Amino acid sequence: MIPAHSDVTLEDLHSESRCQIVSRILSRIGDKWSVLIVMLLREGPPLRFGELKRSIGGISQRMLTLTLRGLERDGLVTRTVFPTIPPRVDYELTDLGRSLARPVDALGTWAFENHGRIEQARRAFDRRTD
Amino acid sequence: MIPAHSDVTLEDLHSESRCQIVSRILSRIGDKWSVLIVMLLREGPPLRFGELKRSIGGISQRMLTLTLRGLERDGLVTRTVFPTIPPRVDYELTDLGRSLARPVDALGTWAFENHGRIEQARRAFDRRTD
Repeated sequence: MIPAHSDVTLEDLHSESRCQIVSRILSRIGDKWSVLIVMLLREGPPLRFGELKRSIGGISQRMLTLTLRGLERDGLVTRTVFPTIPPRVDYELTDLGRSLARPVDALGTWAFENHGRIEQARRAFDRRTD
Repeated sequence: MIPAHSDVTLEDLHSESRCQIVSRILSRIGDKWSVLIVMLLREGPPLRFGELKRSIGGISQRMLTLTLRGLERDGLVTRTVFPTIPPRVDYELTDLGRSLARPVDALGTWAFENHGRIEQARRAFDRRTD
């Protein structure tokens, strides 16, 4: 049983406008790259662009730039440019970003702990529908 | 400060293969429609297709079908067909789906509680870069 721990009730969710609010925000912060960036930045120290790119693996330069810009626009990440040659750019979570890190991290942990069960379910499903 | 509550360490995340596992799972369960469906089903009772469609609002028939099929394949949702005329189809979370409901719900609650701050940050960002 999942204990009731949320302030959002089923009634809230059935209200179309609240559902749309949650949906709009999740379509930004719920993508896998944003989730991974928030997880990587959650413990500090600030990370540079190249460090994020290497840690994530499989993300293109363009997608990392776009995702970081989206997170900056949403007030979740700060971008600090140091006037060195070449310029050094650090990314760090804001307070709002840190408050997001907890639920995001819980989701990532769940994914990591349960990927075996999910893959097992997929294989069973695919056998059933072959 | 975010308390350490996760079994996934920063070291885990820097390991490319673990990061890829989390990323692969999140690309399935992290999309906004899956999150909303899990939130709607988390309290039970089972819901029918039409009830889900009305509750979510703004989702097409095709996208709801695809998302439910993906959740069923991942072992998160069961689909039960009753041989009535017309057939009645109920969707319900599995135990695995219920275990996902908690982190997903925390993310949805965060989104609902913080959408005002995010929208304020966006307006400030857009003014700055106009």
